Amino acid sequence: MSDRFIAVDWGTSNRREYLMEGGQVLATSRDDRGIIEMGGTGYEEAVASIRAQHGDLPVLIAGMAGSNRGWREAPYADAPASAADIARQLLWVEPGRTAIVPGVAWRDPDAPSVMRGEEVQLFGAVAAGLVPPTALVAQPGTHNKWVEMRDGAIGRFTTLMTGELFALLKQHSILSAQLTAAITPGPAFLEGVRHAQDRPLPSALFGARAAMLLGFRAGEDTADYVSGLLIGADVGSADVRGREAFILSDETLGALYGAAVAELGGTAHLIDTVAAFTAGMALIRSLSK
Amino acid sequence: MSDRFIAVDWGTSNRREYLMEGGQVLATSRDDRGIIEMGGTGYEEAVASIRAQHGDLPVLIAGMAGSNRGWREAPYADAPASAADIARQLLWVEPGRTAIVPGVAWRDPDAPSVMRGEEVQLFGAVAAGLVPPTALVAQPGTHNKWVEMRDGAIGRFTTLMTGELFALLKQHSILSAQLTAAITPGPAFLEGVRHAQDRPLPSALFGARAAMLLGFRAGEDTADYVSGLLIGADVGSADVRGREAFILSDETLGALYGAAVAELGGTAHLIDTVAAFTAGMALIRSLSK
Repeated sequence: MSDRFIAVDWGTSNRREYLMEGGQVLATSRDDRGIIEMGGTGYEEAVASIRAQHGDLPVLIAGMAGSNRGWREAPYADAPASAADIARQLLWVEPGRTAIVPGVAWRDPDAPSVMRGEEVQLFGAVAAGLVPPTALVAQPGTHNKWVEMRDGAIGRFTTLMTGELFALLKQHSILSAQLTAAITPGPAFLEGVRHAQDRPLPSALFGARAAMLLGFRAGEDTADYVSGLLIGADVGSADVRGREAFILSDETLGALYGAAVAELGGTAHLIDTVAAFTAGMALIRSLSK
Repeated sequence: MSDRFIAVDWGTSNRREYLMEGGQVLATSRDDRGIIEMGGTGYEEAVASIRAQHGDLPVLIAGMAGSNRGWREAPYADAPASAADIARQLLWVEPGRTAIVPGVAWRDPDAPSVMRGEEVQLFGAVAAGLVPPTALVAQPGTHNKWVEMRDGAIGRFTTLMTGELFALLKQHSILSAQLTAAITPGPAFLEGVRHAQDRPLPSALFGARAAMLLGFRAGEDTADYVSGLLIGADVGSADVRGREAFILSDETLGALYGAAVAELGGTAHLIDTVAAFTAGMALIRSLSK
């Protein structure tokens, strides 16, 4: 049992636990006790409950539990950052027993960014051979990240509020009624991707409404088009032309980003995020001992 | 009394009436009975009530009351459109007594746009000598419009969801807590304007959050910076360098757009919207008789 431990992916809205041994997942559990649900208290009891379920083992936590809105703030490590850098900067809540993985900061005053949780997937994807040590990687979600991996370390990265902007438009905007459909990467989506390359997003978004009012685009194509605008602006910022892009994402969003990468002249590879996360936690655990 | 009439600015959230004679405003009234409050009914009674207050006179209505969510839909006139074109295409609800001003459409399938209400201010600003017949005009608000006026006619125009995007971010986003302050066009605002010229909006917005988390920008400057990003992207799309831009706006928003225009190398002139609206209604009324 010497290399058994429990890896916890403790995010904003959800929590997922993996009982790990030698890089393999022996058991898993999940619930909705993310940091919002936690409300800032009860972390010790929650960790005790996790040990009661999976065994009295070392616990390694990644994600928003290490933010200033979580359990304990684990200060950001500076990029460029390797897995060994991260392992050295673990925040030990209980020495040898319970640790939190720090996030990573790109401290360019002109274009700063931060991540917390994504770093584990990045190191794990490289460690598992899913992504080359030097590669361009995207991590779509509420906030997508474009990351330049360099020799297995996290280099320059940027974060885009793409998913959050789509959710805001879908829930609260003048376009809401047109954005209820499931998104598919068809012709309207790809037109949005192309349009995003040469026109400002705030005018292209209103153009989507005007095109519907004036009969230039069917109402049922508007959701695909608007999604294409947002993801197109996102992917267009990464300069994927002629490059391989590795997309760490669920399949639905990954298919949209992959289609946008292809439309803009790149080659996309979709990578499984759970495989990347568990490999990353196993690596950080082994480097921290 | 032969040239007296009642001009109604009937918008989404508000309604304002002007008793007009020979281009002069004799009396005015306003309330919150915009088309949302109206809920699609009671327009005849509302107009009768306006006549009871201001006199049994011709009524000329502009704004969203002429939309498919208002009283009667007044089909869009095609741009380029002159005031005479608009006057010929009034929708007469009661011939000689009650008419609705049509909106204007820019029917470019590649970059379409529509306006409804703004056209009256544009014609009026030119008729009142506030804006030259050939000029670049902005109309900031929930949706800003950049309009190329050509010999007194409305030419190409685009609409940007700038104000709506700021409101969405302020009310519902991860940046909400930082966007409560009143906006001033100081150094942080102008930095946002400059940054918007060379980086995608979705990444610059997250950068505003990261800069605060990492201590590169004070939290109290974040609202100014984010407003600068949005208005900077907006004004940057209009290519104002070396040009005069006429801003039809209230003073607060006008000062922000004016500062962005100046930062990007243009010269801004702030124009009073009520003077422009009443002059426009007087012109359309005179051309329609």
